[in-house]
Amino acid sequence: MFDKVSIIGCGLIGSSILRAVEEKKLASKISVYDKSSNVTNYLKKNFSVEICINISDVVKESDLVIIASPLSSYKEILLSTQSNLKKNTILTDTGSAKKEVNKIISNLNLKDINWIASHPIAGTEYSGPEAGFSSLFQNRWCILSADEKATKEKIKALENFWIKLGCKTKTMSFEDHDYVLSLTSHLPHAVAYSIVKTAINNEDKFKDDVVQYSAGGLRDFTRIAASDPLMWKDIFIDNSENILKVLDNYSKNLNEIKDAIKNKDSKKLLEIFSSTKKVRKEIIEAGQDTDKPGFGRK
Amino acid sequence: MFDKVSIIGCGLIGSSILRAVEEKKLASKISVYDKSSNVTNYLKKNFSVEICINISDVVKESDLVIIASPLSSYKEILLSTQSNLKKNTILTDTGSAKKEVNKIISNLNLKDINWIASHPIAGTEYSGPEAGFSSLFQNRWCILSADEKATKEKIKALENFWIKLGCKTKTMSFEDHDYVLSLTSHLPHAVAYSIVKTAINNEDKFKDDVVQYSAGGLRDFTRIAASDPLMWKDIFIDNSENILKVLDNYSKNLNEIKDAIKNKDSKKLLEIFSSTKKVRKEIIEAGQDTDKPGFGRK
Repeated sequence: MFDKVSIIGCGLIGSSILRAVEEKKLASKISVYDKSSNVTNYLKKNFSVEICINISDVVKESDLVIIASPLSSYKEILLSTQSNLKKNTILTDTGSAKKEVNKIISNLNLKDINWIASHPIAGTEYSGPEAGFSSLFQNRWCILSADEKATKEKIKALENFWIKLGCKTKTMSFEDHDYVLSLTSHLPHAVAYSIVKTAINNEDKFKDDVVQYSAGGLRDFTRIAASDPLMWKDIFIDNSENILKVLDNYSKNLNEIKDAIKNKDSKKLLEIFSSTKKVRKEIIEAGQDTDKPGFGRK
Repeated sequence: MFDKVSIIGCGLIGSSILRAVEEKKLASKISVYDKSSNVTNYLKKNFSVEICINISDVVKESDLVIIASPLSSYKEILLSTQSNLKKNTILTDTGSAKKEVNKIISNLNLKDINWIASHPIAGTEYSGPEAGFSSLFQNRWCILSADEKATKEKIKALENFWIKLGCKTKTMSFEDHDYVLSLTSHLPHAVAYSIVKTAINNEDKFKDDVVQYSAGGLRDFTRIAASDPLMWKDIFIDNSENILKVLDNYSKNLNEIKDAIKNKDSKKLLEIFSSTKKVRKEIIEAGQDTDKPGFGRK
């Protein structure tokens, strides 16, 4: 599909792309770079691809460059690689926030480069290359946001790449992406971190109880609150404007529940709890979650 | 194990107990009551047990009476059955909040009855008798809170009953139970309802997007926010004191994250997100959740 694909950052997402590209033979050559020597050692043992020691080398002659590292590393990566980017290459990423990144790339004023941001909505609570697997993207959405200078042909090529990895694709503006994701991903993470912190910041007397009796609901949140701290710190800073806005709406909804509890307002509580029941069904019908009880946990 | 067991309320929990008691042959006779004719019809078709039309009949000659209906129905159930309770019977329930219920029972001043509350921390987002299954209690904790008039022998008998159903048991005071559960179950539910409400109360433009891109985190919360509204309305009213207290602590933690986002305080965000990572591991080690990525969803 591509002559050469380069992956910068080989954690959960980068290594899953690497596995899938190899398995599905989507490139004749693959080059990878990761700044961590632990990761590089793991890659050497498990893959026979070009592993670059200097970041500036990794993008050379590459038709598709994928940045799969935390958002705060993008600027340095782009500064180190920009002069080696192949003419007309596709430059993409896998980040969860787009507006700030897009600004950085605009400011660099790259010539003859097709910047098309990608966001495969896939992942787990684990991180690192050993956590990756080639089917991570199966049935997941990948949102593409294209710079105005990107050609239609290259956008199509990148879409096809994600489709081969198992994704369904959708194009969206950088701004819409960041707003939608603040609702579907960033808000849930902020809330999960807060709730787990509340439960564990507890008197010693009940410390073990919180772990033992977590099956009543808390355990669902601890999964998300175990996500990579570095990655999430970056997302919250990059998309702060949207996140603060939805957090305000969220606080209003939480206060509505608080007031209903205070006033022992059965009718109001029933109304709120009934309104949220429907969306679960819609998510299952859209193929975005399992209908098995308790996520089909064993 | 018991000569006769009676189950009042045959939804997800009651019908799962019924299935397990039958399967494991824990009683010679079983009687059931449910006020819904839909449920009664389902039971008639699927079980060969005594199905009572009058609630006052269901507890007759029973050695173990299990109330598995919403908290707000307890008072009526107890008033209707108290005169028919067998001398020295075990009276238990499966509710998620205990203090108010315990008050009701104390006020009734039942004679020669062993009131030992049970809370099997098990369930799914589905409700009704068709959602029940006999292995629901496997590896789950069941918290027992015994009235001071209950005999040790009867507490032991009830513990054994839950152990046969697959549970691990723990005894706890009514007050401690309600506080611990407000952290591990009631707070997560309040938060889940609020977050899903925030995500769906959205401009029409993004309505479908919220469903489609829910795999970034939101979908985890929609499971809990799909729980039975009637049951949860009762829990929030019954345990309002504890829930309001933990919600206040939670709001403080959320505000700490909000401030860190506003100030783009990387260090603080990293510190918060790192502190919540550990508890996931503890929950997995305690056998309270799967270690498979994404709950092992397929």
